[in-house]
Amino acid sequence: MPPMLEQLENLIRERQEAGDPDASYVARLLHNGREKVAQKVGEEAVETVIAAMQDDQQAIIAESADLLFHLLILLVETGVSLADIEQELARREGVSGLTEKASRKD
Amino acid sequence: MPPMLEQLENLIRERQEAGDPDASYVARLLHNGREKVAQKVGEEAVETVIAAMQDDQQAIIAESADLLFHLLILLVETGVSLADIEQELARREGVSGLTEKASRKD
Amino acid sequence: MPPMLEQLENLIRERQEAGDPDASYVARLLHNGREKVAQKVGEEAVETVIAAMQDDQQAIIAESADLLFHLLILLVETGVSLADIEQELARREGVSGLTEKASRKD
Amino acid sequence: MPPMLEQLENLIRERQEAGDPDASYVARLLHNGREKVAQKVGEEAVETVIAAMQDDQQAIIAESADLLFHLLILLVETGVSLADIEQELARREGVSGLTEKASRKD
Repeated sequence: MPPMLEQLENLIRERQEAGDPDASYVARLLHNGREKVAQKVGEEAVETVIAAMQDDQQAIIAESADLLFHLLILLVETGVSLADIEQELARREGVSGLTEKASRKD
Repeated sequence: MPPMLEQLENLIRERQEAGDPDASYVARLLHNGREKVAQKVGEEAVETVIAAMQDDQQAIIAESADLLFHLLILLVETGVSLADIEQELARREGVSGLTEKASRKD
Repeated sequence: MPPMLEQLENLIRERQEAGDPDASYVARLLHNGREKVAQKVGEEAVETVIAAMQDDQQAIIAESADLLFHLLILLVETGVSLADIEQELARREGVSGLTEKASRKD
Repeated sequence: MPPMLEQLENLIRERQEAGDPDASYVARLLHNGREKVAQKVGEEAVETVIAAMQDDQQAIIAESADLLFHLLILLVETGVSLADIEQELARREGVSGLTEKASRKD
């Protein structure tokens, strides 16, 4: 089974393709345009920052989940895959395992 | 091998434990305090938003990688694990595979 | 008559003192706590950034007005005055008129 | 003498017109493009949020000054005046003095 965030990425893609704004939050948000998705990424980051400053672990979990979820939607909307991001991170960190994963991807 | 983001999370933990601000960016940032890590999360989110509005895929990849990297540092700093976030996302989405992963974690 | 933003600052102070969450948006927001006011400042900044990237002047005006309004609420909530900010800006810029205004304030 | 923020707005316009990236921070930032100005607005808002959450009045003053300064640069860059924003705020709040000022502007 693929890692959890890739499963979520696939789910977002499915909802984008289904494209029914009445049936899913993801389709509705995508229907409203990229600027609305980008706005959500910015807002959830602000909420994550505030949760961290309040040292509220439950809020950090909830807001980071919101942030990751909306970041994945923004990536799908802009035609970028989570694998692209992982490959970039692996390239920077140069960790052998990461590098291996990155090269397997090609 | 664990998924890439978990490997990166482990790497960040190792650098936190090594705690040498001269030897690593992660240790240096953590040394400067939580507010500096939170600030980076906010800044990288703003840069991701701008890259998306410019429709620049290379910039989206670079800025999203920065955002994820600093979010992972903030999670480590606040004692939250990526698995906590994934479990929260799985709980919300109710996807069977995700749920299975979440329950395996317990 | 005082400059417009100072009038708005006074209005926010009056609504803070009246303290009736049912009667005014300002009192309601302040009632919800500083983190909610700070969150609004962050969100409106993100919307201003997006409006600027879209080159939409009407949206820039509307979002900048939202940003300034919520920044003034945050200043009132944290016990800082607009005059403090102006004095700081005058100090940095060293413009004679600004400096004069700043010294008159003491 | 015009209110302080209008003086600062005029100063920014003068530096934009002088257009010498070596001589002024404003000209340099404008030279780097709108996205860099917008990025600074977002970053300074994040720092203002963090200063407020830390309840650090000196930091709130410094970061709010940074935020206002960069917002004014963004307005100049996008062809919007502070008077446009004040008129929008006056229109919303309906305060008589504000309304008078707004109508005098026409």
